[in-house]
Amino acid sequence: MGDCEEQLRKQIGELDARLRQLRADKAEKSVIAGEVATRRDLTTRLGALTGVSASSKKESKTIAVKVPKGTRDYTAKDMSVRSEIFQTIVEVFERHGAVTIDTPVFELKEVLTGKYGEDSKLIYDLKDQGGEECSLRYDLTVPFARHVAMSGIPKIKRYHIAKVYRRDQPAMTKGRMREFFQCDFDIAGPYDAMIPDAECVRVAVEVLSQLDVGSFVVKLNHRKILDAIFEVSGVPEDKIRAISSAVDKLDKLPWADVRKEMTEEKGLAGEVADRIGTYVQLRGGPELLETLKAKPELMANAKAQEGVADMELFFRYAAIYNVLGYVSFDMSLARGLDYYTGIIYEAVLVEESERPVVAQAAASAAKKSKSGEVDESQARTGSIAAGGRYDKLVGMFVASRRGKEGRDGVPCVGISFGMERIFSLVMSRRMSQDIKANKTAVYVIAPKDGLLEERMRIATELWDNGIATEFAYKTNPRLATQYSACDADVIPWAVIIGKDELEKGVVLLKNMAEKDASQGNGAVIQRSEMVAELKKRLQA
Amino acid sequence: MGDCEEQLRKQIGELDARLRQLRADKAEKSVIAGEVATRRDLTTRLGALTGVSASSKKESKTIAVKVPKGTRDYTAKDMSVRSEIFQTIVEVFERHGAVTIDTPVFELKEVLTGKYGEDSKLIYDLKDQGGEECSLRYDLTVPFARHVAMSGIPKIKRYHIAKVYRRDQPAMTKGRMREFFQCDFDIAGPYDAMIPDAECVRVAVEVLSQLDVGSFVVKLNHRKILDAIFEVSGVPEDKIRAISSAVDKLDKLPWADVRKEMTEEKGLAGEVADRIGTYVQLRGGPELLETLKAKPELMANAKAQEGVADMELFFRYAAIYNVLGYVSFDMSLARGLDYYTGIIYEAVLVEESERPVVAQAAASAAKKSKSGEVDESQARTGSIAAGGRYDKLVGMFVASRRGKEGRDGVPCVGISFGMERIFSLVMSRRMSQDIKANKTAVYVIAPKDGLLEERMRIATELWDNGIATEFAYKTNPRLATQYSACDADVIPWAVIIGKDELEKGVVLLKNMAEKDASQGNGAVIQRSEMVAELKKRLQA
Repeated sequence: MGDCEEQLRKQIGELDARLRQLRADKAEKSVIAGEVATRRDLTTRLGALTGVSASSKKESKTIAVKVPKGTRDYTAKDMSVRSEIFQTIVEVFERHGAVTIDTPVFELKEVLTGKYGEDSKLIYDLKDQGGEECSLRYDLTVPFARHVAMSGIPKIKRYHIAKVYRRDQPAMTKGRMREFFQCDFDIAGPYDAMIPDAECVRVAVEVLSQLDVGSFVVKLNHRKILDAIFEVSGVPEDKIRAISSAVDKLDKLPWADVRKEMTEEKGLAGEVADRIGTYVQLRGGPELLETLKAKPELMANAKAQEGVADMELFFRYAAIYNVLGYVSFDMSLARGLDYYTGIIYEAVLVEESERPVVAQAAASAAKKSKSGEVDESQARTGSIAAGGRYDKLVGMFVASRRGKEGRDGVPCVGISFGMERIFSLVMSRRMSQDIKANKTAVYVIAPKDGLLEERMRIATELWDNGIATEFAYKTNPRLATQYSACDADVIPWAVIIGKDELEKGVVLLKNMAEKDASQGNGAVIQRSEMVAELKKRLQA
Repeated sequence: MGDCEEQLRKQIGELDARLRQLRADKAEKSVIAGEVATRRDLTTRLGALTGVSASSKKESKTIAVKVPKGTRDYTAKDMSVRSEIFQTIVEVFERHGAVTIDTPVFELKEVLTGKYGEDSKLIYDLKDQGGEECSLRYDLTVPFARHVAMSGIPKIKRYHIAKVYRRDQPAMTKGRMREFFQCDFDIAGPYDAMIPDAECVRVAVEVLSQLDVGSFVVKLNHRKILDAIFEVSGVPEDKIRAISSAVDKLDKLPWADVRKEMTEEKGLAGEVADRIGTYVQLRGGPELLETLKAKPELMANAKAQEGVADMELFFRYAAIYNVLGYVSFDMSLARGLDYYTGIIYEAVLVEESERPVVAQAAASAAKKSKSGEVDESQARTGSIAAGGRYDKLVGMFVASRRGKEGRDGVPCVGISFGMERIFSLVMSRRMSQDIKANKTAVYVIAPKDGLLEERMRIATELWDNGIATEFAYKTNPRLATQYSACDADVIPWAVIIGKDELEKGVVLLKNMAEKDASQGNGAVIQRSEMVAELKKRLQA
């Protein structure tokens, strides 16, 4: 492993140097983006590097020193960036009054059963070691609905950031993992139409604007309008799922290809497909509602009326929330999950959708996948958040508790952010050496004579005063080692002591962030003034 | 479930009222402690309440609306308190320069194999669904050692707060869960003797002093001294584990009982037990080292010499770190885990150890357990943090990678905090109604006429200015509903608007934290001054 890892690290280092140069030279965006993509690839490969030499030299018993397929360790720098991202997101959620809850990492198997359609095969089960049958959570939505039903609370606005598990074929370079973070914001409660729905889109816009992920658009559609389109076009009941999934590919494929899939692969009559085509190729802003309302055959359908009324309200509220500039009403957006009942939305990066070559490559790779279905996580490389309204999910649990179908369910609407994608986007814009993973402000240095106990005494005084402090854990450390610890951990200040300073009751204070910090002696400070002086400088 | 839950909630509510009264009356500590214990019991029962009515009325298919045995949901108020605790702890860790890393929730099964002795039977395995055999992590120490070995880093000071999994018999009232949080701080690296070890104890003292958990003592011992005692006392090699575990019970049982267990149950010769007895009943401060050094038969043993030298250094450093007042050198402390190689320590609540009746009851209950072994988590109700030095664990992984025994291992020392215990201690001192789980600062109210869009407009302006704001998700909400939302969520400020105010271009600002907030009209503020005025008041 060592060699391969070393080589990868070397490559990344060289790439970083090149990227710095390109940025300094203000090179073309696309050139930089290409290098950044390469770097991301190298980084994920490095992350996925899994102790291959484990069985290469068998002498004693061998333990595989690696992590399970599709999982990874996060280093201190990863965690530092991840925690910044989480903090930004949580601030937005809390600005909108959300609280957080936590649920177990595994649920009773039957809680998850029947919620994910075909994808149920991706659920991780725990081994039967006696007792209940349990499975690792597949998302945070179903556990949330179970929690709402179980606790009997009538309403809650909550966020939840936690890991979920899918026994998928991992594709590290595409950011598809078996263990990955989800970050959900949901509003549950019996409220008036579209008020919380519009707020979820506002939350998405706030989060994505504040994270450094690039330009994005939130695509919108409504399940009831989509259902009405299929009904009035004459799609047979049993084909609706399949046709809906074909429509969903319109962001990656031209209409001709989608039409072909509908008619040739899925056996839909040509004229039915054409009628669908007149609707699902529509996209735009609020004015699209007028286009729909001008179609009497659609508006005769009750579901269409409800959906259009909802969307009219939505656009009014979205205008007040100043998010009209970020949304696009897109009649081809269908979303895979069964449980949506109203508005659905999906935030996509605009740069990605402007790259037809990439999009087509992804789509054709997806087409080749075994099932013949487009694999969502693969094709939708641009999707960074998604959600919608699901009014019946809590009711499924309440119904089973009360023995009555659908009674007392709590209507919900929510949005889920694709954390791994966001993480890799933000990470790709950061230079590793600029990330300070620790919070250490001061390093206590004795250039010679060791002076361990005196270094300890100074550290204690600084800890007592809330100043994050470290020193070398050696009785007699080399000066170079102490300086390089400051460099490696980007520690801004050094307190330096020698026998002279001890005798005079002073310390030297040195700004390690300055160029040539190893030159010069730093400022002479009375030992009794050390804490006050450091506090002053750290605040500056 | 509803009724039972309601009853529990009612009982807790009544208890809270009584507790408030007792505290106001400055009642005896023990009386309050009794009520607090009862409340904790009720709370955990409430938490563990698991949709019992699921199968009581079968009409359609029934889904069990409950969480798996030994797991629980955390409510918003739980999470709020938990996050305060984590923040306090993380601040201490970061003050000492620690970074955080993350590892997967499951590991390859063989990574965990052979690390936990008898307790290996408590490991949760994932079902074999093809591919690798995996298990849920049992603690954070073994995954940390695996990470250090796998990444090849020579040193790291890291903390990790995450859930671990044990297929134990849950005892919710004792805080023993199958899914629970651990919070670990470890220093890995080839450092000079006892410098990081003393810092770990300093970190424990800082954390426990800052959390509101009550008085505590950190018991200390050294594996090498303990091994030497057994060697010079003449304990046969194959009995050392069993005798060590008997010695560990001296905090709960008198010496006579422990001696009896050694001789009658474990077949040790009486004079061997008596020799052990002269050592393991010793406890005290640094002066105990003089007592040991005055025993030539012990000091002839090389391990004893090493252990005593270590402890002499430790006490010197502990004095500099100002933690001598918190530690107790206790020759009976043995700790269960095999992997410790040097100093071991355990923080216990002093109140608990001062309750011999409770301690004896716990010990006798533990004695009755099937295996005849004291169940640690049950008997040690007083233990809130524990750890020690483990120099060989990383080497186990490195050795297997390199094919050489023990080569290139990274020595480690660390401390793990018992989060569930700490959480329930802190929670028991908090009144539910005083916990504000949300961060909402302002609620926008329209006493009549609905004014939804105007409320939305105000909320948008406040969000844009970083002020956490909510309003009723109804077009025409009742005033009482709006006021009670402020009360329930402890929201300090209300912005109130009516048609009059809109016409005059003003809003009313009302301090909802004041008594009789529903009376009076609040201050009249120009709408253009609203944000500035609120920012000023929120900062005050």
